Amino acid sequence: MIKITSVNNELIKETAKLLKSKHRDESGLFILEGEKCIEEAIQSGLEIKHIFSTEGFEDLPQRIEVTEAVLSKISDAKSAPKSVAVAKQLKPVWRENYKKVVLLEGIKDAGNLGTILRTAAAFKIDAIVLYGNTVDLYNPKCVRSAVGNLWKVPVFKLDKLDIFNTYERIATLPKGENVINLKEYTPADKLLIMFGSEADGLSNELKEYATKNVTIEMSPSVESLNLSVSASIIFYSIMPK
Amino acid sequence: MIKITSVNNELIKETAKLLKSKHRDESGLFILEGEKCIEEAIQSGLEIKHIFSTEGFEDLPQRIEVTEAVLSKISDAKSAPKSVAVAKQLKPVWRENYKKVVLLEGIKDAGNLGTILRTAAAFKIDAIVLYGNTVDLYNPKCVRSAVGNLWKVPVFKLDKLDIFNTYERIATLPKGENVINLKEYTPADKLLIMFGSEADGLSNELKEYATKNVTIEMSPSVESLNLSVSASIIFYSIMPK
Repeated sequence: MIKITSVNNELIKETAKLLKSKHRDESGLFILEGEKCIEEAIQSGLEIKHIFSTEGFEDLPQRIEVTEAVLSKISDAKSAPKSVAVAKQLKPVWRENYKKVVLLEGIKDAGNLGTILRTAAAFKIDAIVLYGNTVDLYNPKCVRSAVGNLWKVPVFKLDKLDIFNTYERIATLPKGENVINLKEYTPADKLLIMFGSEADGLSNELKEYATKNVTIEMSPSVESLNLSVSASIIFYSIMPK
Repeated sequence: MIKITSVNNELIKETAKLLKSKHRDESGLFILEGEKCIEEAIQSGLEIKHIFSTEGFEDLPQRIEVTEAVLSKISDAKSAPKSVAVAKQLKPVWRENYKKVVLLEGIKDAGNLGTILRTAAAFKIDAIVLYGNTVDLYNPKCVRSAVGNLWKVPVFKLDKLDIFNTYERIATLPKGENVINLKEYTPADKLLIMFGSEADGLSNELKEYATKNVTIEMSPSVESLNLSVSASIIFYSIMPK
């Protein structure tokens, strides 16, 4: 049984580097925090490199016993969990048969991205596209907010959108001209639903690329909804009964 | 023109205390962060005691010029805003004609509560009831998450629920027995919609008090939704076309 008690251990120092985007990109690895999230990852067949824990996962070969101080070093949660794992990032391959695809442009809030991934899995979205300058999918806060659902819907980072030329392309917008109310909207079979960032909304490029504009009906006294709230309402509404 | 440059100024020290729930309760005051939120509060007619800012609000008598260091002392946001205000808490009075009321039991996440308040205002909920041991409505994180909507729907802290004996009382539950799918549910005229906390769900007391159980249809591969996401989908669904 391996046990690590020093925060200066080489493996721990290497693991702590994964809290930074640059090292996640270079290594293709990421950090999972908490027993439940790690269990979901194992069940989903993710490749788990190490599981560091004070207790739990004793029957797995990747498990390494560590102290609480070590866990604090490799977690950025406010209170460090009892288990932290290192897993291999997924590299999904685009499939022609994706029908319900969600595009998130310039999303910066990791908590919102994680929540959207969780909800997308719940409402059977086929794929997510990150477009423009966005937060890293494997940011620990995003992994936490997805609550074990990060890997259930494939996520792609795209620079070009030609593959969607045959899709109905929805711009989700606040009140405005030429918008269809969500309750009156009937989704097409092949659908790209586009959301802008909370700060800036959709770019003109994507507004022009859209074939339809959809808005969520609401009180004029409220300026806008939280991005993950808007996305959830739309995902739920377009899910077939 | 008053200017405060010292973080040890008495008014600044008193204001910083409002970051703690105890002092908010004692004083009946709370903190608003950021220009947009303060402007919404002014427009809504909230009583504003002071506005501390490096710039902005120069034409208002409550404005006090301060340094960035002073703003950091009286804000708990990651990066301090350019303006922080102190306002008087609202003490709403219960009205008999409230028809769509939302009960949140034991809610602990200030970000979720703020997001729910924002969404409740958007979808014309009449009142919110906090029940059991919940986070403080005037927690700065909650105020931030509500994005200028904290005071648009009246919020009540209740210990007894007799006033709802004549309402249809909905328990919102994950999959289970005797639940109606949201898409098949037709809301009654007078409605109490009850949500449990993310960690524990609804208590048995409230499950028994419910007259109907409603669930959001979703993929069995996802265990649950974020609380503010569930609430938003239900608020939107029951809002009349």
